[in-house]
Amino acid sequence: MSEKTVSIDIKKDLFGANEEAASKNAEVFKKHGIVAIDIMGSVGTGKTQLIEALCERLSEKYPILMIAGDLATRIDADRVGSHGVDTVQINTGTACHLDARMIRVAIDDTDISKYKVVFIENVGNLICPAGYSLGVGKKVVVVSVTEGPYMIRKHPLTIKRSDMVVINKIDLAEVLDFDVDALERDIREVDANLPVFKVSSKIGTGLDKLIEYLGL
Amino acid sequence: MSEKTVSIDIKKDLFGANEEAASKNAEVFKKHGIVAIDIMGSVGTGKTQLIEALCERLSEKYPILMIAGDLATRIDADRVGSHGVDTVQINTGTACHLDARMIRVAIDDTDISKYKVVFIENVGNLICPAGYSLGVGKKVVVVSVTEGPYMIRKHPLTIKRSDMVVINKIDLAEVLDFDVDALERDIREVDANLPVFKVSSKIGTGLDKLIEYLGL
Repeated sequence: MSEKTVSIDIKKDLFGANEEAASKNAEVFKKHGIVAIDIMGSVGTGKTQLIEALCERLSEKYPILMIAGDLATRIDADRVGSHGVDTVQINTGTACHLDARMIRVAIDDTDISKYKVVFIENVGNLICPAGYSLGVGKKVVVVSVTEGPYMIRKHPLTIKRSDMVVINKIDLAEVLDFDVDALERDIREVDANLPVFKVSSKIGTGLDKLIEYLGL
Repeated sequence: MSEKTVSIDIKKDLFGANEEAASKNAEVFKKHGIVAIDIMGSVGTGKTQLIEALCERLSEKYPILMIAGDLATRIDADRVGSHGVDTVQINTGTACHLDARMIRVAIDDTDISKYKVVFIENVGNLICPAGYSLGVGKKVVVVSVTEGPYMIRKHPLTIKRSDMVVINKIDLAEVLDFDVDALERDIREVDANLPVFKVSSKIGTGLDKLIEYLGL
């Protein structure tokens, strides 16, 4: 099992350079038939727990690489690594999002050809990661019933730039008196056709449907 | 009651220009004897609810202005405005934080001399707002038991750049099986002397102590 840590010090992000790097990443993923997924969302929405739950169900079927983005620590990579998948932790220092060049560093640092699935957990932030292509097949935004009722209406751009939404921790909806259907309506207001999955990564609700949609 | 909305379109943030604007804001606040507080924190940590609870307790004693920063909507300003305080909503568009020049716009747009307390609710984001001075007396970071246990360890810089921490929603700690003391230990690891307040804005726990510390 491989557990790497890469520290990144990029002071200036140029969107143009990012798009170019993203295209190169996309070529690499396509060449090797890799399903690559960028998982975005705020702090504490359960992105890591979702990836852990997916790895538990998929790691015997596919060789998986998990790339984790955080300002500091390798807590998330270690959590996912405990399920027997290879991990690269990217420590961004002060950067509030991953970009395509950071993913490029991670790709170059591994034998990418041996993986069939790459889960990328972006930095915990509902805003900035949505602005940067990584070259993945799908950008997923994870929201959670613990975030209060307004996160969709306040962040329509993040929803517009995502390919699908996971509403996580639905097992807590009742105790937090959270209206999941109202949240889904807010998503539909932004994009009527966006796929929405209601999930509890903790107890497993909704994961089979999500895995089927991802083609895994 | 005044309810304004300001839309900001600033493509490039220069830290130098920001520091200069922050100094000017600080002069204005000082000149008028205003206590100005920058309230930062991730999406759903209860920043608005905290400001509402503080306004409920303080709005008869002091004239208060609340400045809310969000990418879109004026949901937060309207929530706080319902407690009878004046509000300015700043819509940042795509910007992931408030900066001193945005606050300057809000100051110039009001008769700032008539207020004694200015609560600034920053954009919901645990990372970027910490990097920008607004010219306030205190930067407060609000974290919540709904964010999972790792938000302090992953974001030490935000803690270092804050003057105090509010751990919010402690009424939910038991049902979420969250260890508040462990979180406080993580904060102490980053800064042993940082004031930490354990609060439930919803039911009022810890607010008197917080208000006393703020000198209000």
